[in-house]
Amino acid sequence: MEDFSYCNPTQVEFGKDKEKNIGEYIISKDVKKVLICYGSERIKKDGLFYTVIESLKEKGIEYIDFGGIISNPTLSKVKEGIKLAKGNSIDGVLAVGGGSVLDSAKAIAVGTLYDGDIWDFFIKKEVITKALPVFDIMTLAATGSEMNCFAVITNEDTKEKYSIFSSHVYPKVSVINPLLMQSISNEYLVYSAADIIAHSIEGYFTASSQPTFLNRQIESIIKTVIDTTEILINNPKDYETRGEFAWAATNALNGTTFLGASGYTFPNHMIEHTLSALHNVPHGAGLSVVIPAWMKWYYKRNENQFTRFAKEIFGLPTAIEGIEALENWFNKIGTPTKLSQLNIEESDLAKIIENTNKRAEHFGLGDIYTKEALNKIMSNAL
Amino acid sequence: MEDFSYCNPTQVEFGKDKEKNIGEYIISKDVKKVLICYGSERIKKDGLFYTVIESLKEKGIEYIDFGGIISNPTLSKVKEGIKLAKGNSIDGVLAVGGGSVLDSAKAIAVGTLYDGDIWDFFIKKEVITKALPVFDIMTLAATGSEMNCFAVITNEDTKEKYSIFSSHVYPKVSVINPLLMQSISNEYLVYSAADIIAHSIEGYFTASSQPTFLNRQIESIIKTVIDTTEILINNPKDYETRGEFAWAATNALNGTTFLGASGYTFPNHMIEHTLSALHNVPHGAGLSVVIPAWMKWYYKRNENQFTRFAKEIFGLPTAIEGIEALENWFNKIGTPTKLSQLNIEESDLAKIIENTNKRAEHFGLGDIYTKEALNKIMSNAL
Repeated sequence: MEDFSYCNPTQVEFGKDKEKNIGEYIISKDVKKVLICYGSERIKKDGLFYTVIESLKEKGIEYIDFGGIISNPTLSKVKEGIKLAKGNSIDGVLAVGGGSVLDSAKAIAVGTLYDGDIWDFFIKKEVITKALPVFDIMTLAATGSEMNCFAVITNEDTKEKYSIFSSHVYPKVSVINPLLMQSISNEYLVYSAADIIAHSIEGYFTASSQPTFLNRQIESIIKTVIDTTEILINNPKDYETRGEFAWAATNALNGTTFLGASGYTFPNHMIEHTLSALHNVPHGAGLSVVIPAWMKWYYKRNENQFTRFAKEIFGLPTAIEGIEALENWFNKIGTPTKLSQLNIEESDLAKIIENTNKRAEHFGLGDIYTKEALNKIMSNAL
Repeated sequence: MEDFSYCNPTQVEFGKDKEKNIGEYIISKDVKKVLICYGSERIKKDGLFYTVIESLKEKGIEYIDFGGIISNPTLSKVKEGIKLAKGNSIDGVLAVGGGSVLDSAKAIAVGTLYDGDIWDFFIKKEVITKALPVFDIMTLAATGSEMNCFAVITNEDTKEKYSIFSSHVYPKVSVINPLLMQSISNEYLVYSAADIIAHSIEGYFTASSQPTFLNRQIESIIKTVIDTTEILINNPKDYETRGEFAWAATNALNGTTFLGASGYTFPNHMIEHTLSALHNVPHGAGLSVVIPAWMKWYYKRNENQFTRFAKEIFGLPTAIEGIEALENWFNKIGTPTKLSQLNIEESDLAKIIENTNKRAEHFGLGDIYTKEALNKIMSNAL
């Protein structure tokens, strides 16, 4: 096993009505004025916004309203949030939404305490040394951002989708109430399922050494996502199942599934981030296209592990049958597996490959993910 | 799923040579003078003690030496530690050893900041509101104490073995170096295996509602303990396997295996704590005797879950076959399954039953664990 240091300070508040205590959670960290980050006006229509406001007011916490954050959240919106936070003596950031909103909130929390350009941290020009406290109320389970120290933002000018990570951006308190996730469309449910599976398999398949205990922990997440997604498609209001789906999502990227593994990389995310940066496809939809294509190209490099996956997840005997079973499952639940389903044409590939190869070099993976290799991978998705 | 709040602030430092950084970990929490708690003089013979001292001195941390803590750690020893800590302006406690040493350290950390009798917290007369920071270097993997907020102490006068729990006693930093665990005897290895399995199954079998995701996470721990114990018996210096065993042990009782479950209890621990309080048997040895006896008595109350256990862990079709397989496995690795192996006679049962029933009433379980029921359970272990 590889050496590791692990400390996850996030306080998870899981369950019904937990959002009603948000004021209490925030004041317990001595925060007096928050920037409330969110996406569409849906949280005003369904009343969640006002539940939050009421709880803040009860505790005497002031707030500034900052809506309009979109999927594949943008650098320009983050900068707008930073400007608003700086101009209003904000001392905490509250995200109400999914991973895009929370990732924006994390970036705003860092940028508010920095005089330069927030993008400096994404291109590794600067190291994060502080951030405002971050809180969240999740309305979508997928990214795991609620219990990790990552944030992914897209620079629309350069078409780069890069991430920051720092112990300073672990949320202080995360509210996960499965009831708030019941109104998610099946479309976004299945994209989320693909995202969680992607988080689970990146280390699982690419690690040069992987403890068996980790394999088992990860397989328990994947099996849970498969079972619960199938139930939720037909019964979106099944609270128990929604809860298991949500908690599996958090566990898939709270850091624990990498402890003791070595040499792992995130190739599916690396490739998909190009798709969503260039073509603005939903992250999960991009992933369900990339994953089978990447697996078919990669599996012979780690065939034992792919055979294990086939057996443990689908009860099948060979690596390739496991890959096909996952692809079939993506098709069955209705998340795309071909580029054409994302309206990406063969003629778009050159630019995608160019951008991904540049990204691979940024991550020190340029030798493996050459243009030729990427061409083979992407061709599998045509 | 049951609502829950979870925050585990312990910083885990896992891997080779991590104990050499202990001074750095301690000074990072602004602690200047520690009480070093340990068991036998073995840590002086093998040099670990001096490695620790050197690291403390490098960072200018003073220390007081407090050895002689025994298995089933005693209240009198804890009081001795508290007195020493109070008399020497100690501002942190460092445990070097296994769960008994760490549990003593936690109790000392609480008692040093309290003017009354530390036992007040064990009998719920007082609630813990503060504790000195606790650090540890583990030399045995079993109790999970290194990443949880529990401590179990035996009051020798009253023959009561009770626990405290409080967020204040989570260790600040826990060092888990599998190399430091290689010299453990096979006897204590297999007792530890029984202890970890006990931690895994208490909630698994007794919860009135248990998410499937939790079942899978727990099964991954049990499977890992079974596989790794068998390897370590013959290859005690297998680093990878030792590491997996240790990390599975930590995960079995760091709180995560109970999140979202409801209505669970700890009957095997409740019964075993009587055995070790009255007869001073090693905790793990007591557990491997109690578990099959309890399972045979209990399983019809939750037969589906016992059938699941049989299938997932041993690939067997019925609940009773799963119970027998676990008992056979305990026999195979060489941890006891009968009271006679602990030198406990049938004539000792009355007192054990009396004491356990009193303990059951303390936990609000007196209706289930009546003297009659306990007689049936204990008779299964004759």
